[in-house]
Amino acid sequence: MSQHQPQQTPATPNEVASTLEGWYALHDFRSINWTAWKTADDEERAGALDELQEFMKEWNVTEEAGLGSSAVYTVVGQKADFVMMHLRETLEDLNKLENDFNKTTFAKYTTKTYSYVSVVELSNYLSKDEDPMQNPQIVARLKPVLNKARYICFYPMNKKRDLDDNWYMLSMDERRTLMRSHGLIGRSYAGKVKQIISGSVGFDDWEWGVTLFSDDALQFKKLIYEMRFDEVSARYGEFGSFYVGSVLNEETFEDMLKL
Amino acid sequence: MSQHQPQQTPATPNEVASTLEGWYALHDFRSINWTAWKTADDEERAGALDELQEFMKEWNVTEEAGLGSSAVYTVVGQKADFVMMHLRETLEDLNKLENDFNKTTFAKYTTKTYSYVSVVELSNYLSKDEDPMQNPQIVARLKPVLNKARYICFYPMNKKRDLDDNWYMLSMDERRTLMRSHGLIGRSYAGKVKQIISGSVGFDDWEWGVTLFSDDALQFKKLIYEMRFDEVSARYGEFGSFYVGSVLNEETFEDMLKL
Amino acid sequence: MSQHQPQQTPATPNEVASTLEGWYALHDFRSINWTAWKTADDEERAGALDELQEFMKEWNVTEEAGLGSSAVYTVVGQKADFVMMHLRETLEDLNKLENDFNKTTFAKYTTKTYSYVSVVELSNYLSKDEDPMQNPQIVARLKPVLNKARYICFYPMNKKRDLDDNWYMLSMDERRTLMRSHGLIGRSYAGKVKQIISGSVGFDDWEWGVTLFSDDALQFKKLIYEMRFDEVSARYGEFGSFYVGSVLNEETFEDMLKL
Amino acid sequence: MSQHQPQQTPATPNEVASTLEGWYALHDFRSINWTAWKTADDEERAGALDELQEFMKEWNVTEEAGLGSSAVYTVVGQKADFVMMHLRETLEDLNKLENDFNKTTFAKYTTKTYSYVSVVELSNYLSKDEDPMQNPQIVARLKPVLNKARYICFYPMNKKRDLDDNWYMLSMDERRTLMRSHGLIGRSYAGKVKQIISGSVGFDDWEWGVTLFSDDALQFKKLIYEMRFDEVSARYGEFGSFYVGSVLNEETFEDMLKL
Amino acid sequence: MSQHQPQQTPATPNEVASTLEGWYALHDFRSINWTAWKTADDEERAGALDELQEFMKEWNVTEEAGLGSSAVYTVVGQKADFVMMHLRETLEDLNKLENDFNKTTFAKYTTKTYSYVSVVELSNYLSKDEDPMQNPQIVARLKPVLNKARYICFYPMNKKRDLDDNWYMLSMDERRTLMRSHGLIGRSYAGKVKQIISGSVGFDDWEWGVTLFSDDALQFKKLIYEMRFDEVSARYGEFGSFYVGSVLNEETFEDMLKL
Repeated sequence: MSQHQPQQTPATPNEVASTLEGWYALHDFRSINWTAWKTADDEERAGALDELQEFMKEWNVTEEAGLGSSAVYTVVGQKADFVMMHLRETLEDLNKLENDFNKTTFAKYTTKTYSYVSVVELSNYLSKDEDPMQNPQIVARLKPVLNKARYICFYPMNKKRDLDDNWYMLSMDERRTLMRSHGLIGRSYAGKVKQIISGSVGFDDWEWGVTLFSDDALQFKKLIYEMRFDEVSARYGEFGSFYVGSVLNEETFEDMLKL
Repeated sequence: MSQHQPQQTPATPNEVASTLEGWYALHDFRSINWTAWKTADDEERAGALDELQEFMKEWNVTEEAGLGSSAVYTVVGQKADFVMMHLRETLEDLNKLENDFNKTTFAKYTTKTYSYVSVVELSNYLSKDEDPMQNPQIVARLKPVLNKARYICFYPMNKKRDLDDNWYMLSMDERRTLMRSHGLIGRSYAGKVKQIISGSVGFDDWEWGVTLFSDDALQFKKLIYEMRFDEVSARYGEFGSFYVGSVLNEETFEDMLKL
Repeated sequence: MSQHQPQQTPATPNEVASTLEGWYALHDFRSINWTAWKTADDEERAGALDELQEFMKEWNVTEEAGLGSSAVYTVVGQKADFVMMHLRETLEDLNKLENDFNKTTFAKYTTKTYSYVSVVELSNYLSKDEDPMQNPQIVARLKPVLNKARYICFYPMNKKRDLDDNWYMLSMDERRTLMRSHGLIGRSYAGKVKQIISGSVGFDDWEWGVTLFSDDALQFKKLIYEMRFDEVSARYGEFGSFYVGSVLNEETFEDMLKL
Repeated sequence: MSQHQPQQTPATPNEVASTLEGWYALHDFRSINWTAWKTADDEERAGALDELQEFMKEWNVTEEAGLGSSAVYTVVGQKADFVMMHLRETLEDLNKLENDFNKTTFAKYTTKTYSYVSVVELSNYLSKDEDPMQNPQIVARLKPVLNKARYICFYPMNKKRDLDDNWYMLSMDERRTLMRSHGLIGRSYAGKVKQIISGSVGFDDWEWGVTLFSDDALQFKKLIYEMRFDEVSARYGEFGSFYVGSVLNEETFEDMLKL
Repeated sequence: MSQHQPQQTPATPNEVASTLEGWYALHDFRSINWTAWKTADDEERAGALDELQEFMKEWNVTEEAGLGSSAVYTVVGQKADFVMMHLRETLEDLNKLENDFNKTTFAKYTTKTYSYVSVVELSNYLSKDEDPMQNPQIVARLKPVLNKARYICFYPMNKKRDLDDNWYMLSMDERRTLMRSHGLIGRSYAGKVKQIISGSVGFDDWEWGVTLFSDDALQFKKLIYEMRFDEVSARYGEFGSFYVGSVLNEETFEDMLKL
């Protein structure tokens, strides 16, 4: 068979798993321009901090109204100094948040380093018999209130399409079987690591964003490393940059910025 | 057979599908330098906004004369703050638009982040019996008036040439068969997503630009994800960065810039 | 056969096609710093333009002396605002041109975006019976006077060396056969597209630079797209960034810079 | 067998080697902004140096308390001018160190060039019969006091997952066998090169960071080159940037900065 | 045989060719900030030039003492404006040279663009019967005095490790055979091109740096192009950026900087 021969077209088109979508997500990574921050005088810094805290207080209003959830974490290493993670009803809401931050005085002391646009997603591989949106547990996972665990880990990923290792050429059954064993590893970390999967096909440069939360950062390493031996990751996983950091609140954020 | 053996040269050269070309396209992505914008005084900002609106009003004149079409959308995330999409008769027209924007006062408050040069294209895989340029529907697709849907999605793409997964080594028949099933997916989104395909071989770093418009951003994700399981994308698609945003007009652009 | 087994060494070493070289080439891409240009006062701008035109007039002196040829084109999109293409007898000549431009006042208003160093080349695949340097047509192609067509297209390229798709492991005969059919496509565009091939092995990051000239930019797309289905490109071509633009002269360059 | 066929799922899931983790590690690479440093006046420079030395003295306090270890080395070439390597109990400790350095006056004269976040790790491939944390030698390797050898070499690395060369699809037995021979090479450099392996799955962009110390920089080259012929590296190793430099202390750091 | 099967471990470990090392090498590429240089007044420029020439004169002292050798060449195109190539006894010597340059006033008018750290190396593939360090010809090649040919060409390279094209999985015999024919091409350029191979495993991002010198720049192209058809390069060579330029001395360097 020559290489010119395309794959035989299956009798029925390759079935696509349905997914459920919830809140849109923006991960907004920033570095602090420490030289500018140190050069500012006390009054400027105090003003900037006041504005920042006001900006962060708005997040609580949104969360109490059930219209979204936000969190802020440090990022260890030079990739960024902190990340704001926002979940909201629409892309316009995220865009407004981003611009509102950019308009604060504090933003002047930061530089953009990375961002990720996606939508919280549940894949429907395993159960098909109920209407999932009637299930409050599922709705809670699609519109999750961020629980401010001690650590965050974020990375974007693809399913590979590389010659013989092509996820998208597998049949629905094959994918379902592979995902089931993959899911078992995830479930064995229940109570230790909470994960939010967000889809970004059409929104950003990778197919998914993965956000993990834990009170023990080592669990991120153990979970992802264990999964790497599972065929879904081993053969089909393609990973972007990894970001890790620890939770901030209005007070500890201010501490971090204290000179 | 050694690896030194080239593919047997086909009796007749590999047939190339003819394409039809319409307006040239420039996608011009920009970030706002918020610090400079905030540092400017009210008068400077007002002057810059006036100039920007004058610049945008010219687009309407061109559109009414049937000589092109333009639109402006926000971009969510840090890749850009907005994108101006221009369709015009010639490359010189696009170049002039680009320079005219650069000469405005407002441009001083922006930085260039990405651009894409292409020409609106219809591939002629499916019908060969009529003169397509006599078909007003086809002309309308080659010189489309941008309809300002609520959301835009843009990404560049290639057809792969990677060992056994080489689109350009397939025969015309094989490509036609594959594209037909690919087209069926697209057509099932009619009314939900409008797409403009523009060719960029010789003009920019990928082979095509894809611009999607929809009033529901989730439809971008669903369409592109469904297509990814189709062999044309699964085996032969290679994708660049994805940009998503929401429509702006003179008023909402000004709102976005209000401090 | 284990993967450890190297290819059997051919009885005679793999024959290398001889090439002919002419003028050295520098493609010098620049962006205009519009903010600095707008901030300059009228006198500064006038002085910079005078110097620029003087610099460009020197090109004519060189061309009349038969010692080289130069041209300047806009570049559409953000990759650059214009490109100066220089052909000269030696690398030192090119280096001096580059530095002379950098020393002009106008250079202060530009930033470097890309450059390409190569030497005009004719490959000798097809005819071996005459001394090519006695052929005035060949000499004219090795030391071509740039004819200022309306449009330019530039891109660098490699021949692939990727597992089974390895141009450099093909025999001379195989390469000659493949290049012949490739050349036929090129020849079918005679009168529509003029091309200059320049070799850059040892000089820059790709193996060749390709510069195309045409009065109809669509012909670039049609030619390159048609070639992409030819095995030489389909299996063995690897392409860098594509730049497209339209011709400038002293007058239209000044127009472009008028505020 | 079509390419759609996934690997047969093994009867028992692919066993994952357990690893032991110790101190978290931050490699913090910086360049000196020499122009700014030379522009500063003597008093500013003296103040900056005082603060830097105070910052470095804190490292000794931590080391004496058994809560971590730090070292500083030059980096040869333009990738950086120096690297601070920190080992600490928690990610928060590392983050604080990073911020504390950023808040010093000296930091104003530096720019960030690269960083790496990981955790000191011992893989448990070879012995499984004892509780390793009861072994003081193992604890000393998990929480190593940096011994300030004359030279440092740092690089990040992955185990490959590329079609037939996929480390993570090997069985535990195969990996154990391969690692054993790999380890023998390492052991033959005992006394000449000391190495610290730190895991970074979930923390940074590669799977491991490797830090080597030696009093003879050539030993880095010999060790890594010899290992490259070992199947673990030859088929399965994927390497990032390499950094090499020589040890600094408070005095030689000051010498380096003397104008 | 499943893809899980590792290569059978050879009875004896894969033999590693011994290499000989001489002087450490630093290639230090810089661009000139022409705007800053033009903005400086005559006195500043004269002072900077004096300091630069003093810095370069030190090189002669070192060379006369037999402790190293240095050269400076222009670089054509935008990748850099010049390169300083230094050979010295230790990494510390190179680091000091780099810092000493950075401390000069002239450095203020330059920016770093690329650097390469390596050690001059002779591979011992072909002869094993003598003690090479007793051979003055070999010592002269390990500690070469740079002969200031008219042109320089520099590029870094790897031997590939890509599935079936994996240099490091070949046996010593296979590598020796392949290198012998490769060496024959090199030798046919004797008298036309002088080459210095420097190893950089553990020191920089590629495995080797190659520096070529010639009085005819075309010979670089011819040599490298001819080698590309040799299996060592064709199947196993992986190349970084290429830099080409012409020799500078104190006088011509000053000429280049004259406004």
